[in-house]
Amino acid sequence: MQLQCPMPRFDFDVITLGHGSGGILTHRLLESGVFARLGNPMLDERHDGAVFREEGTLAFCADSFVVSPIFFPGGDIGDLAVNGTLNDLAMCGARPKYMSLSFIIEEGLGMQDFWQVLESIRCAAEAAGVWIVTGDTKVVEKGKGDGIFINTNGIGVVLPAARIGLRHVRPGDRIVVSGSIASHGVAIMSVRQGLGFESDILSDTADVSGPALQLVETFEDRVRFLRDPTRGGVATVLNEIARGASLGIDISQSDIPVEEAVASACEILGLDPLYVANEGVFLAVVDPSVEQEVLGLLRSHPLCSEARTIGTVTGEHPGLVLLKSGIGGSRVVSMLPGEQLPRIC
Amino acid sequence: MQLQCPMPRFDFDVITLGHGSGGILTHRLLESGVFARLGNPMLDERHDGAVFREEGTLAFCADSFVVSPIFFPGGDIGDLAVNGTLNDLAMCGARPKYMSLSFIIEEGLGMQDFWQVLESIRCAAEAAGVWIVTGDTKVVEKGKGDGIFINTNGIGVVLPAARIGLRHVRPGDRIVVSGSIASHGVAIMSVRQGLGFESDILSDTADVSGPALQLVETFEDRVRFLRDPTRGGVATVLNEIARGASLGIDISQSDIPVEEAVASACEILGLDPLYVANEGVFLAVVDPSVEQEVLGLLRSHPLCSEARTIGTVTGEHPGLVLLKSGIGGSRVVSMLPGEQLPRIC
Repeated sequence: MQLQCPMPRFDFDVITLGHGSGGILTHRLLESGVFARLGNPMLDERHDGAVFREEGTLAFCADSFVVSPIFFPGGDIGDLAVNGTLNDLAMCGARPKYMSLSFIIEEGLGMQDFWQVLESIRCAAEAAGVWIVTGDTKVVEKGKGDGIFINTNGIGVVLPAARIGLRHVRPGDRIVVSGSIASHGVAIMSVRQGLGFESDILSDTADVSGPALQLVETFEDRVRFLRDPTRGGVATVLNEIARGASLGIDISQSDIPVEEAVASACEILGLDPLYVANEGVFLAVVDPSVEQEVLGLLRSHPLCSEARTIGTVTGEHPGLVLLKSGIGGSRVVSMLPGEQLPRIC
Repeated sequence: MQLQCPMPRFDFDVITLGHGSGGILTHRLLESGVFARLGNPMLDERHDGAVFREEGTLAFCADSFVVSPIFFPGGDIGDLAVNGTLNDLAMCGARPKYMSLSFIIEEGLGMQDFWQVLESIRCAAEAAGVWIVTGDTKVVEKGKGDGIFINTNGIGVVLPAARIGLRHVRPGDRIVVSGSIASHGVAIMSVRQGLGFESDILSDTADVSGPALQLVETFEDRVRFLRDPTRGGVATVLNEIARGASLGIDISQSDIPVEEAVASACEILGLDPLYVANEGVFLAVVDPSVEQEVLGLLRSHPLCSEARTIGTVTGEHPGLVLLKSGIGGSRVVSMLPGEQLPRIC
């Protein structure tokens, strides 16, 4: 903060409509903290957009975040937004480089909350070595938004070895999950419902681009497909794979890693963990010949110590995901019908 | 639309929370019209992001749109969002190539309204030859949003001849405006207030990347700076130039093109046209040696027939914008203080 002139540089406790005007108040908001926190040579140009030169094939991802509440056990909407886009880029086999950051803020948001979210954004971007290079700030009237919505877009450089796509998936391929599932959704739900087990269950929000990209670098075209099961959960991603590849998928309930506290909470809340959102977990479809090495590599990462094979791709029952239950029965797992937990991310 | 199975493919009149679930309803929404309308080889991959290869220097822009109402004379939030990002890219001297499209929809938005907005998006993107390659759809509960908010990010290829930046601006440079100002803000305001002159005043929302890029191609480094005066209007952009380049700017009130109906409406509404948002106008700072040619080239475009020089960059009064009034007086034009017209874009 600079020394204050007789006219204070910033005399608001809350965001006002004027902060979205594009005029003096917007400039003050940006200059008084946003640019200082997020600064880098590209952002410092202050142009209508960022300009860069990058060799190779690029990936481009977009995501909006409307999670409620904006602060939750294990994270907040700020690191969620950054990590979400880092993970999306990694799922394309791309190393994250640049990010845009757009806010839609409801009039009346506490300035302290805004700075706290921004600080989370800064930390997450800095940890990943990613530059936030351009962005936008809009403010809507009280009652026309909900605190803060964030949109992040990301650009990354696709690893030369990456051959990721549903067309590469073959019968016999193994489906590996990088960690225990369903923590994010349950953490959000627990605070939203005031259920009191929030102290035990943290959102898994994390940047898993490191281990995901290491898989691609190490196993190249034997990594067929990557995707992070956010909204809709693991069940929805498995269905997307089965439909997109016109192949079947067999999974076994007993192989799916769910932390005990999360599993109990799911039972209390009547949720199936397979449909609950994750924010620091990914699915990898890999060649069976490298399955054990993939698991070994993943488990060496603290974020992926619970990595496990949960199923196999099959030429039978194309388009369908079949789950073998604990007692030996078998049932079709569909995509998430309706909505289980609105505004989970 | 395809023929209906016994189970209709789409049986909602309004957007529901389930359309943002990431599950079946999200897929149906996308498959039943979004992908068909916006389809291109990159979007059709249906991956977490788009992957492309592009030579040269790239520009990357981000913008959110929260305009209210979403339909207004001359356009809607859909073409506004596309045109806004096309223009931002052009202001960086970049030819638009790819765009992302993210929706935050309020539960209850009429499905017809959604399709109409999407159709505007399709038309605007198609007219510009730009592909929408990735995106995101979120839905928030009724009362936590306002119809629909749109975020677009764009990627373009910077023209090799472009040397656009505040550091290139010099004393003596001319400031050219590409057309009559203030139509967008007044068009929105007139419908919002039900003032009844809406039939005469249309938003200027338009893609002006064509003429802007033609300037850069033709006059190369003699085009020093480009910016579209959206929120905050011409006055705010002139202040950004004066501050960023540490130079002064002199403008003359009588040179500023404002349509008669717009000027009258501004008087009724108590608005200064210099602060009113534009969505199809840009400012170009150019070398004085090419001023007349620049005006000639711009006026040959239907969207820029009212192009005019409005001022000059000066070494005097650095950081200040001075306006010579109609009766010969002179006053400082500051940035937009506070907020004039919330949610104008």
